[in-house]
Amino acid sequence: MAEEYKYDYFNISFPAKYVAHVEINRPEKMNAFVEQMWLNLSAIFRRLSHDPTVRAIILTGAGDRAFTAGLDVKAAAEGSITRTSEDPARTANALRRHIYEFQSCISDVEKCEKPVIAILHGISYGLALDLSLSADIRLSTSTTQFSIKEVDIGLAADIGTLSRLPKAVGSLSWVKDVTLSARIFGSEEALRVGLVSGVYKDKKEAVAEGLKLASLIASKSPVATMGTKELVNYSRDHGVEEGLRYTAAWNAAMVQTQDVKDAMLSGLQKRKPTFSKL
Amino acid sequence: MAEEYKYDYFNISFPAKYVAHVEINRPEKMNAFVEQMWLNLSAIFRRLSHDPTVRAIILTGAGDRAFTAGLDVKAAAEGSITRTSEDPARTANALRRHIYEFQSCISDVEKCEKPVIAILHGISYGLALDLSLSADIRLSTSTTQFSIKEVDIGLAADIGTLSRLPKAVGSLSWVKDVTLSARIFGSEEALRVGLVSGVYKDKKEAVAEGLKLASLIASKSPVATMGTKELVNYSRDHGVEEGLRYTAAWNAAMVQTQDVKDAMLSGLQKRKPTFSKL
Amino acid sequence: MAEEYKYDYFNISFPAKYVAHVEINRPEKMNAFVEQMWLNLSAIFRRLSHDPTVRAIILTGAGDRAFTAGLDVKAAAEGSITRTSEDPARTANALRRHIYEFQSCISDVEKCEKPVIAILHGISYGLALDLSLSADIRLSTSTTQFSIKEVDIGLAADIGTLSRLPKAVGSLSWVKDVTLSARIFGSEEALRVGLVSGVYKDKKEAVAEGLKLASLIASKSPVATMGTKELVNYSRDHGVEEGLRYTAAWNAAMVQTQDVKDAMLSGLQKRKPTFSKL
Amino acid sequence: MAEEYKYDYFNISFPAKYVAHVEINRPEKMNAFVEQMWLNLSAIFRRLSHDPTVRAIILTGAGDRAFTAGLDVKAAAEGSITRTSEDPARTANALRRHIYEFQSCISDVEKCEKPVIAILHGISYGLALDLSLSADIRLSTSTTQFSIKEVDIGLAADIGTLSRLPKAVGSLSWVKDVTLSARIFGSEEALRVGLVSGVYKDKKEAVAEGLKLASLIASKSPVATMGTKELVNYSRDHGVEEGLRYTAAWNAAMVQTQDVKDAMLSGLQKRKPTFSKL
Amino acid sequence: MAEEYKYDYFNISFPAKYVAHVEINRPEKMNAFVEQMWLNLSAIFRRLSHDPTVRAIILTGAGDRAFTAGLDVKAAAEGSITRTSEDPARTANALRRHIYEFQSCISDVEKCEKPVIAILHGISYGLALDLSLSADIRLSTSTTQFSIKEVDIGLAADIGTLSRLPKAVGSLSWVKDVTLSARIFGSEEALRVGLVSGVYKDKKEAVAEGLKLASLIASKSPVATMGTKELVNYSRDHGVEEGLRYTAAWNAAMVQTQDVKDAMLSGLQKRKPTFSKL
Amino acid sequence: MAEEYKYDYFNISFPAKYVAHVEINRPEKMNAFVEQMWLNLSAIFRRLSHDPTVRAIILTGAGDRAFTAGLDVKAAAEGSITRTSEDPARTANALRRHIYEFQSCISDVEKCEKPVIAILHGISYGLALDLSLSADIRLSTSTTQFSIKEVDIGLAADIGTLSRLPKAVGSLSWVKDVTLSARIFGSEEALRVGLVSGVYKDKKEAVAEGLKLASLIASKSPVATMGTKELVNYSRDHGVEEGLRYTAAWNAAMVQTQDVKDAMLSGLQKRKPTFSKL
Repeated sequence: MAEEYKYDYFNISFPAKYVAHVEINRPEKMNAFVEQMWLNLSAIFRRLSHDPTVRAIILTGAGDRAFTAGLDVKAAAEGSITRTSEDPARTANALRRHIYEFQSCISDVEKCEKPVIAILHGISYGLALDLSLSADIRLSTSTTQFSIKEVDIGLAADIGTLSRLPKAVGSLSWVKDVTLSARIFGSEEALRVGLVSGVYKDKKEAVAEGLKLASLIASKSPVATMGTKELVNYSRDHGVEEGLRYTAAWNAAMVQTQDVKDAMLSGLQKRKPTFSKL
Repeated sequence: MAEEYKYDYFNISFPAKYVAHVEINRPEKMNAFVEQMWLNLSAIFRRLSHDPTVRAIILTGAGDRAFTAGLDVKAAAEGSITRTSEDPARTANALRRHIYEFQSCISDVEKCEKPVIAILHGISYGLALDLSLSADIRLSTSTTQFSIKEVDIGLAADIGTLSRLPKAVGSLSWVKDVTLSARIFGSEEALRVGLVSGVYKDKKEAVAEGLKLASLIASKSPVATMGTKELVNYSRDHGVEEGLRYTAAWNAAMVQTQDVKDAMLSGLQKRKPTFSKL
Repeated sequence: MAEEYKYDYFNISFPAKYVAHVEINRPEKMNAFVEQMWLNLSAIFRRLSHDPTVRAIILTGAGDRAFTAGLDVKAAAEGSITRTSEDPARTANALRRHIYEFQSCISDVEKCEKPVIAILHGISYGLALDLSLSADIRLSTSTTQFSIKEVDIGLAADIGTLSRLPKAVGSLSWVKDVTLSARIFGSEEALRVGLVSGVYKDKKEAVAEGLKLASLIASKSPVATMGTKELVNYSRDHGVEEGLRYTAAWNAAMVQTQDVKDAMLSGLQKRKPTFSKL
Repeated sequence: MAEEYKYDYFNISFPAKYVAHVEINRPEKMNAFVEQMWLNLSAIFRRLSHDPTVRAIILTGAGDRAFTAGLDVKAAAEGSITRTSEDPARTANALRRHIYEFQSCISDVEKCEKPVIAILHGISYGLALDLSLSADIRLSTSTTQFSIKEVDIGLAADIGTLSRLPKAVGSLSWVKDVTLSARIFGSEEALRVGLVSGVYKDKKEAVAEGLKLASLIASKSPVATMGTKELVNYSRDHGVEEGLRYTAAWNAAMVQTQDVKDAMLSGLQKRKPTFSKL
Repeated sequence: MAEEYKYDYFNISFPAKYVAHVEINRPEKMNAFVEQMWLNLSAIFRRLSHDPTVRAIILTGAGDRAFTAGLDVKAAAEGSITRTSEDPARTANALRRHIYEFQSCISDVEKCEKPVIAILHGISYGLALDLSLSADIRLSTSTTQFSIKEVDIGLAADIGTLSRLPKAVGSLSWVKDVTLSARIFGSEEALRVGLVSGVYKDKKEAVAEGLKLASLIASKSPVATMGTKELVNYSRDHGVEEGLRYTAAWNAAMVQTQDVKDAMLSGLQKRKPTFSKL
Repeated sequence: MAEEYKYDYFNISFPAKYVAHVEINRPEKMNAFVEQMWLNLSAIFRRLSHDPTVRAIILTGAGDRAFTAGLDVKAAAEGSITRTSEDPARTANALRRHIYEFQSCISDVEKCEKPVIAILHGISYGLALDLSLSADIRLSTSTTQFSIKEVDIGLAADIGTLSRLPKAVGSLSWVKDVTLSARIFGSEEALRVGLVSGVYKDKKEAVAEGLKLASLIASKSPVATMGTKELVNYSRDHGVEEGLRYTAAWNAAMVQTQDVKDAMLSGLQKRKPTFSKL
């Protein structure tokens, strides 16, 4: 199956039952992103979303140095981000189309029906945040260096960090601090404010723990985990009354699954249930 | 007065002036919920909401072992959650009605005009979260065992946890972690992410502290505390501009209360004000 | 330039390049606010918002004892908050106008295009929270005493605290605790729940650190920092999809700035860029 | 079955298969509403909502003179609307509870799962609009006299007219005209602005046509008509993207109904399908 | 009193009890707007909003030829709309500030607590729509020529027309037609789609009828008419549930007015009530 | 250029400068839709959206009999709409994916940056409405037969009609009438409620008028018409304050276009401007 998932800048493997591993693979450039990469990323996650053999995903960066150093600034400097026409409105429209497409690729991680665990190690700058904030769970290591780097290249971050971060952590003062200063911060701080929910010694241990968590999630009813992801994301963006109403419409179908009966029975019988593919 | 509040599965008492104590009372089943219980719960809180002798409420579970173990799965397995007709749409409609009613009963704790302090001890699974997230303040003990258990019975939680939790705590990564894995976590973790705002040695101490806090709140102007609950809940679900507008409409009436004058004067005179019933 | 910023109750200075310092200056009354003060505050921040020589602002209270003790209750008791007509509806309308104007003055700190760092020391009660929650970053000292005092004068806080606090920190249980009890809490707790993002030994050190942070922010592209403030505030109040759409419209213009090229080039050349005025 | 629906102020009958007829029955007072009536109304529509033998409902007023003249002002003058305590805040709270309950009763017509056709004849003042705007379809007669009467008793209408009317018709200028002036208008105008979708000669003809329309709707799949009502009401209150998302969640269950196959087959075979009860 | 309302480009008079008449007064330029005019307009309506002697307002244009021909394009061409700096982002920021201020001035008509009736005669282009859509009621004459002219000067209308028109009329297809084509249309069409709610023979008759309507509104309880304007505007922008909740909070204060008792009593006694000033 | 736009079921031509004509081309089946067709439709409109030689689009159906008879029910009956698995939740998920994709294809007409004029003639059932409601302007002929047909196949319409219709026309009573009854209605009624904004004698005349309107729109600044479409659609889905804020961010870039200067100058010089490509 892994053969079907061939992409220049990504390694896809299936290290455990129902678990996919997506590895950003441009370690010689600290996994910095060029345009082809976010197009690939989108294609990969749209496919994993509907792949019946996948129930949980871990997302990592190849190499020791970086999850990703963010946008490949040199490539960007030659590319669309600095392209102009003579007319500022026409330039604006070209840029808006570009931003939309870029945002949409990154959002495909969030739209993926299966839970995604991002494991941030080493340099985790700029796009590292946009990307991992589209994932469901963030883990890091004792030496991860985070930075919301965009203001240092004259930009307000526009690929998702500024939209998702205020809803992902528990301190708006801290959000403003790190987005306005672009300062580097570590895992202890990331854990304290809630950006990550687990910190491990090093990359090896973090990946192992991430895989363990992915395997645990993959052992649950895929109807239940898909619904949980969908409903938490929905509720993040809506008031409680809205969340309850959408939840009722969603579960009116989903509660009919055979999985509920199987899971309940297994629970009472203290054995492990199996669930059919989704 | 306590005589008027007679329910099979709940003990209602009035341990301090203007303070009500609602105890879930099915300790032999670890306070697991059957349908009658959430119907009772709704009736109790709708009544307390308008009871002029009540200004703050504590909510606890009877016995040493559990705040509540959640839904009584055996009862549910025989009941509506697994009921089906031959037509999936008609089944869906029956389920939706059932979910709405269940959600509505639990939301009556949130809609109660008086602040509610939930004290979670021992086993606090599944519905324990739905229920306590509808309360205003959550306290726990050093041995509380929390779990958002629903995925283990094949379900995305639909009685409020997924809608309220992302707005109640400060780490979306952690929310996804515990809702997707159904793992058990303790009070230290609950305090770190903000799920509870106080942790005490054991149930006895936690209830005593909860009662102390309830008494403190009950000593304030009931106009002020009712408004504070209403406006915080409103603001949780709306943008800041919306919050300010609703606040102004609300306080245009409420600021006219005699309580403001009494409280100000008492403050200047360093004495304790009394407020008339609400 | 400082001469142009003359106000009775505020000192305005410019301690570093592109950095303004606004000091609440009524130390003999612990910087308690009378109506003239919030009108001044509004005028000051509306002006700083468009002042091309300003890129970051720190906000402090004069004297050793207090950032601000909040509303001057004596003045308020004689003023509008207790004014009544014979008709409760007409009184309500007068009060609503008053609340709107007061809210609007405090919101001008949030609407200021330049990032604002509030440094809370000593007594920080009531309005101290409304005001600093309109700022972007909150810092405090080891001895700061915070209290959301309003319920103690018979009021639900209506100048912004109840609307902004649930979105500024990571524990709704804690929000209800401190807003309903009006209890005093310190910096350790404020840091834990995310209300402040830095705590320093004393006022002197906190102001020095605040100034350092302001200078750092002021050294960045003003197009980037203005956009970052705007987009984080927008995203706080909207769902993620909404945030991304607004971000794209915003950055379609802003990414065209010369600052991006200058910042990128400086980055590659390891030198410090300069940016033209905004 | 009709025996089970016995209420003092309402006649309930079942004039056609799957069609219920609710008649407001206080003709000697032009069907003016006292509190008992809106409590009854709520009970009736909550029951019809889940009654499997009902698929469409018509709502009319008894007698020749009025659908309803609105609130019984004399009764109201002696009742809650003018009740006061000495404290304006406590009075406000009592009034708010009262308004909520009244609104909720009227909204039960909107929440009823089955489509409701209101037929307005003769005097149709005040509450006539609140009530019929909670229905799905409004029909009238050549002599209906409409008036949004509330400003004439010193009130902004608060039982639903001001919330629903701007979304029910196609002229905000007209909405302001009739709500601010309280002037009487007729069916020609009501049809032009879209308040009603059909005008008939007299009550008899209008009721006959309403019954015909109800029968037509009742002949369709109840899964389809329930969903249509729900989704149109949802979309009225949400943006298009939100509407599409909720629609997909809703129909994911509902499209599985046997009714789709039966209806398609009947369509191809040119015969009339029958659908099982909902 | 009229002496206090002196503005270069506007005539303010008080033609009837509690009624103000605001006349745009630059007939030699077909009442085309220069910047000073929208600043004046804002000042006038903010003042009328709180003027206790005013309960309804009519807004007209001086002269026979035009309500207003819109923006004074020559003045604009020399002014801010075409101002640029070398940096497109800095230009964008200057433009955004300008648009905000302009929008805000026009919105002050909507924010005015008292109902505003706009009477459009003759040429009514561009800003004529932005302005009159901020009013509550629109009347016109048999010869009014409307045009949403902005695309003809290379612009999407940004002072309110595109935001308010889709909610003011009953045909989105028509909204797109007239905003995209900039074609001129007349009163018959305006009445059909609901843009205006009354069409009269000529300016004289329309002003007379507008004055009559303003007088009628001014004879009602000002508490009731202010609330009606506020609640309709609120509901235009919110879902029904939101509208009902805000309405209840609003009316909890407002229903306490003496006006309700006076109006009810007057109604029963068939005499005209008088209401105290607001 | 037309050669590049080759699709089995659609004819694409360019009948006038900057104007594209998209014709649904399956007349032998009354242009009924099979899955390939909505996939094609999406591809076509995504391409036209960015095609610099296109500024306005007309959308028609081939043949005399129908714009489109809607979904090809026979094909659907064999396809996904009736597909099931044994598990209702898994079936629901497959259906939801299918609905999302179908909705998304139709929404691409709305997302197309260029204005789209749909011309409905003859049979215009079901999908005819979903599709044309995604267009900007709807025109029809004296013999068009409209029907929102979905309830007749046991379905609540889920491809856009129920989400867009309540915001497109001016009578919610009429929306419920036609969506619940599935009755056929004609152009007179469609014009009265605002569904269409122009009715012409026959298809030939309607297409000619549509083309004339498209040519007029195509003669305007493409920056202005794109912005107008975007801002009207945005405002349809948001409150007025939100609309104004987004508009200001949008126009901050767009007003900088050379088109404004060219259009203003041309206007003053009474000549026709030309605009560069977008």
